[in-house]
Order: sequence, then structure tokens, then C-alpha cells
Amino acid sequence: MSELTERSELSIKAAELDAADELAKLRSQFVLDDVVYLDGNSLGALPAAVPGRVEDVVRRQWGELRIRSWDESGWWTAPERIGDRIAPLVGAAAGQIVVGDSTSVNVFKAVVGAVRLAGEGRDEILVDATTFPTDGYIAQSAARMTGCTVRAVTPRDVPSALGPRTAAVLLNHVDYRTGRLHDLPSLTSAIHEAGAVAVWDLCHSAGALPVGLDEHGVDLAVGCTYKYLNGGPGSPAYLYVRRDLQDRFDSPLPGWNSHVDPFGMRSEYEPAGGAPRGRVGTPDILSMLALEAALEVWEEVSIETVRTKSLALTDFFLDCVAAYVPEGRVESVTPSAHADRGSQVALRCDDAREVMRRLIAQGVVGDFREPDILRFGFTPLYVGFGDVERAARVLAGLVG
Amino acid sequence: MSELTERSELSIKAAELDAADELAKLRSQFVLDDVVYLDGNSLGALPAAVPGRVEDVVRRQWGELRIRSWDESGWWTAPERIGDRIAPLVGAAAGQIVVGDSTSVNVFKAVVGAVRLAGEGRDEILVDATTFPTDGYIAQSAARMTGCTVRAVTPRDVPSALGPRTAAVLLNHVDYRTGRLHDLPSLTSAIHEAGAVAVWDLCHSAGALPVGLDEHGVDLAVGCTYKYLNGGPGSPAYLYVRRDLQDRFDSPLPGWNSHVDPFGMRSEYEPAGGAPRGRVGTPDILSMLALEAALEVWEEVSIETVRTKSLALTDFFLDCVAAYVPEGRVESVTPSAHADRGSQVALRCDDAREVMRRLIAQGVVGDFREPDILRFGFTPLYVGFGDVERAARVLAGLVG
Repeated sequence: MSELTERSELSIKAAELDAADELAKLRSQFVLDDVVYLDGNSLGALPAAVPGRVEDVVRRQWGELRIRSWDESGWWTAPERIGDRIAPLVGAAAGQIVVGDSTSVNVFKAVVGAVRLAGEGRDEILVDATTFPTDGYIAQSAARMTGCTVRAVTPRDVPSALGPRTAAVLLNHVDYRTGRLHDLPSLTSAIHEAGAVAVWDLCHSAGALPVGLDEHGVDLAVGCTYKYLNGGPGSPAYLYVRRDLQDRFDSPLPGWNSHVDPFGMRSEYEPAGGAPRGRVGTPDILSMLALEAALEVWEEVSIETVRTKSLALTDFFLDCVAAYVPEGRVESVTPSAHADRGSQVALRCDDAREVMRRLIAQGVVGDFREPDILRFGFTPLYVGFGDVERAARVLAGLVG
Repeated sequence: MSELTERSELSIKAAELDAADELAKLRSQFVLDDVVYLDGNSLGALPAAVPGRVEDVVRRQWGELRIRSWDESGWWTAPERIGDRIAPLVGAAAGQIVVGDSTSVNVFKAVVGAVRLAGEGRDEILVDATTFPTDGYIAQSAARMTGCTVRAVTPRDVPSALGPRTAAVLLNHVDYRTGRLHDLPSLTSAIHEAGAVAVWDLCHSAGALPVGLDEHGVDLAVGCTYKYLNGGPGSPAYLYVRRDLQDRFDSPLPGWNSHVDPFGMRSEYEPAGGAPRGRVGTPDILSMLALEAALEVWEEVSIETVRTKSLALTDFFLDCVAAYVPEGRVESVTPSAHADRGSQVALRCDDAREVMRRLIAQGVVGDFREPDILRFGFTPLYVGFGDVERAARVLAGLVG
């Protein structure tokens, strides 16, 4: 088959897939232009509901109601309320997620909390050796401050590394570089069999695929909200503490917002029950309420539908790349098996930094990751199959 | 003199003071209505520059430029850039303040950092016994995680409590409840003589009075930005680490944003030099850039001018209360000496909660603090002497 015929056939296929896509209508709920935006795994696109909401928060809630908004505009309870909006997307019942602080700060709460839950005699923390670096840095600090040591292991080696000294295991659900999806149910189960506490980082899975926190008995989890949840730059992260662990969750950051009676201004700390125990200081309202507006799009969509489309998008991208790009020019480091794939495709490419620069200049936005990775994220809420075909075509034009 | 004459005289006086007030013109840079807003020490009023800036950040920087804004819109460097905007207000040279996280999280960084700076053999942390509670809770956690104990002492008792075991002292510059201004220069000096590290919480002083961090050799400081700096609800806090201590500052929250090469994605942590070492995770851009717009008003005004007006406002309020309110009905717990007074007046009042509710209903907004305190904050940028006279008059009408 000639290259031209292939292009034509894949274009037709893309149009057919887009026509059959039940999520295609959601694209209008985002502010998008002619760019093919495949960087939603770094910063999600702007949901159309956000600008008006933020304007109301700034002009009316802050500007007119001022201090009264802590009650009247629901500012004070926003961390738990928005946590409950995220909960169904990660398979959690209400009352277990609280929004606030950065992912790194939440990793610290979770890992220290996990070590304290694990109890005496357990002094080793296992950390995903391929983790996004901040998790490793923070775990190291948590270890130092709780008398533990850290051991870096690849997720597949976790079961054999577990032992009676293991206090906690910090893993990423999806690897930020390769897009590999780790087996949360079986790893969590192995961690529990060893008597240790499982902490999952959901940054690259929440909003892209089902997580099943409650179903799989995950102990603690954290995640950001600015990737597949489209909360905006640096929007607050979240912390999940499984309900039956909440009473024993012992935060290393017991700020006044986590007090059982925050306005009692008592000198003795007494932690609140439930998800609010994970709070620390005053919540960042502008960013938090932008996130709340961003989450409204999920009212119409299930995470299972999103996952189905996500896999179809990444399959189709790999097909298009295989058809268009000369063999050997790029190599996918993302697993081909659906069970092992997140919602991104990472292609190894010799001159990846320069190729990505030129891709972006031609309207296909992914990102570069050291040392040689072209990273493309697929957000099913607003990426279509036509986008995917175009991205592969532009890439082929650059590296062919 | 009859009460009516007094009222008339104080009204005339207020008008004269307002006419002579060189800061009066700044009021137009804030969104205000007919309310007398004396709660800027809890949540500052909305600066007029903020709504447009936030709209630009949301619609153009996020919505159109998306991921490119991390470079092109200066998002990545915002924590240091905005820190440098706050620096002159607290008497710090550039390069020592970084913005991000909540005050509580920064107290944790600062207290743990202080203990580590103090070195071996020092295992006691002194904490202001009258502190805003979160500082005490966090100090307790910092102590637990660094092998220290906490002792609560009133600021005046700090010099006699200092000893060879003292690692760090955490103090509030202005007491959140009484409005008492503590003697930062002499307390810092006493702490240094004892070989300990001074950590100051500037929440209730920054933007209201000169702090002189560099001049007085303060080691570490934290503060919020939503009170006298008008950054908006839950806007990010900041951390000051004195320049000559930065290389030894050892953060308990070494997130990837504080790495010397954050995008190198290295598995080994190597801290950045300078103020960025105090960073943790991805900065909260919407709130941070709202704060940046809010700080523009300071381009035209010195903190010394603000302090002069602040003292005139609180003096005048106390005069009006003395003239209008029947003796014994309220009692100021704020020091009368200028050297001991922040920018607020706290009045003890038997039925304070109900009185404040009615004051607010009549357009005079302060706040209630347990158990019996009417708290009034005076932000010189937008509060006038007429406001002050009216507040005292309405109060007198309620309790008279």
C-alpha cells in the first residue's frame, strides 16, 4: 500500500472514530484552538466553565462578600466538598478525600502517616525506583524524620522486596515517563500480605482510567488535579485516607484546619475526624474553586467510558506512527498491552528535544522528557482521533 | 462637653485627618462599598488590579498559551519574583523570600530548618504561649520529628527561658488576638546571644508596619499574604531564610521545585541555592499571580508611611471609643504604647459574639475571637479616619 493511500485510509478511519465517539461532544466544554494538544498529562486545557466561575469568586465572593464568603460561599468546606467530587473518579466513596496543598506536601503527609500506621518494628520504606523524582525526595525526608530507610525498587520487584521490616510502599499508578500502568490491585494485595501500608500516587491515572481505591483496599493515595482533571496550573492536590484508617491517621502537618474545633483557637491539638484530618492551613480558594468548576464536566461522563476512549486513542496513535514514521526512527517505550498502559505514549527518539520543539512549532503540543523521550498525553475529554492522526502525520514529516 | 458636641468634634477631626492623609488616594485602588471594613487583618479587600489580572491568567495564559506559560508567562519563577516584591515590605534584600504553600507548611519548614541549623545538643523549641494555634501545633510536630521538646512561654519570658538547650524560638511579631507588637529586635538579639535560631511569624505585621528582617538579623520568617498584603482568600504564604543561612538550610519538604535542576528529573536530591531552596511542589499559579497584582499598590507607598497612618488610625479609634462608648462597657486589650501595638484594636466585651454580629449587620465589619474579643483591623491602604469614627459610633449605639 502506498504511503498516500495509508494516509487517506487512516484519515478516513479517524473521521469514523470521531463520528462514533460519544465523548466528542465534550470538546466544546474546553477552550481549544487549532493546536493538537497532547500535553494534558502535564497541564490540562482550560474548561469553559472556569473563567466565569473564577470571575465570580474574585469579584463577588471576595470583592463584595469578603470575609463572609468563608461561610456564605462555602469556602471553608471546599476541601472536603471538592474531594467528594474527585472521589467517584478514583473509585472512592465520599468522605475520604480532601483537597489542598501540593502533591509533594501530600506525599509527605501520606508517607509519614503510613509509617506511623505500620507501627513499631517496621523501618523500611520501599519507593518506586522509576518514580517522578519528588516522590523519592519526599520519601527520603519522611524516612529521615521517622527513623526509617528508603529502598528504591522497580514496581515489579516490590513483591520480592517486601518483608517484615517494610513499613510503607510508595508507588506511582502510571509511570510519568513511559506511561506504564502498574498493577495496583495485585501490588496492593502483596503489600498488605506483608503487613505494610500502600501509598499510591495517582497523578498520571486519576481522570484517565479507573483506579478503584476502595475496591482494592488502598490505604493512602495522593494525586494532582492539573493533569487529566484540568484544574489549572498548580491547582491543589488531594489526599485519600481510607475510612477505617482515618482515626489512626497521624499527620505530620497538623495545622489548624485539621483541628476538631479550628475556631476554638485551643492551644492543645485535637485532630478532626474523617477527611478533614488531612487538611493543614488555610485553603487556597481561587485555585480550589477553579478546580471545582473544572470538575463539573465529569457530571456527564463515567471514568470507564473515558478509559475505553483513552485506549482507543493510544492504540490509534501507535497505528498511525507505525504507518507514517519510517521504521527505526522512533520506538515506543509505552507498553503495548492495554493492561499495562496509561493514557500516554512515550516515544524514544534520538533528537527528541529538537523534534519536540519543531512539533510544537507546527501545532502539535507534547513534551520532552530527559534524555530522549517524546511524551504525548491523550485526554479523552477533548482529544479526538483526527488530532491523533494529525499528530502522527506531523511527526512523520519531521523525522521522515 | 455633651455627647453630641463630642460626636460633632470627632467627625470634624476625622474629616481633617482624612483630608491630610497622603494615603487616602489609595482607597480607589481597592474594591470597596459603604461598609466599614475592619477585617483586613483576616482577609484583605480586593485590589482593583486583581480581577483583570486573574482573567488574563485564566483566559490567555492558561487558556491560550497553556503549557508554554510556564516559561513565557513567567509562571515557573513566580515564587521568587513575588518573594522579591514582598521583601522590601519586611525589610529584606532580594533573594531571600520565596512564596508558596500555606503559612502552616512554612512554619514546618522554618522550625525544622531552625532546629537543624541550631545543631547538636540543642533539643528544645520555645514557642510563643499566646501564639495563633497552628504555629504551636506545627512546632509540636516539628519537635516530635526532630527529637526535640516544645516549651510554651510568653514572649516577655523568652529571655529568661533561653538556655544552652534552646534550638529554636518561634514567635509572632504581632499577637493575633490582642494586637500586641512584640519587640523583634531585642528578642532576636537575646535568642542569638543564647546561640539559638529565631523564627518569626509575620502574619499580623507584614504590610502593616516595618519589620526589618535583615537589619535585626532574623534567621527565618514566615507569613501569610491575605491579610495586610491583600492577596486573596488562602493566597500563598512565604518563607524568608537569611542569605548567609541559605546554604545550610535543610528543608524537611525537599520537593522537586527546590532541586538544583528540577527538569533533570534526577533520582538524587541536590538542593538549589538561594530562596528557591524553600520551594516544594508546583506553585499554585492562579492564587500566586492574583497576589502579584495585589502587591502592585505598594509601588507608590512606603511601609513607614503606612505605619504612621496605622498608629494614627488605632489612636483615633481608641479616642472615639473612649468618647462614645459608656465607660466599662468595653475594655481595650491592645497595648496603648505605640511600640507595643500592631495595626489592630481588640476590645473585650461581655457579649462580644452577639455585638459583632450586630455590628456587621450595621455595616461595620470586624471579627469575633473567643472568648470575648471584638477584633478590629486597620489597613491604612484603604481605611480612613471617617471609617474609624463611624465604627466607634455604631459600636456605641449597640452597647450604649
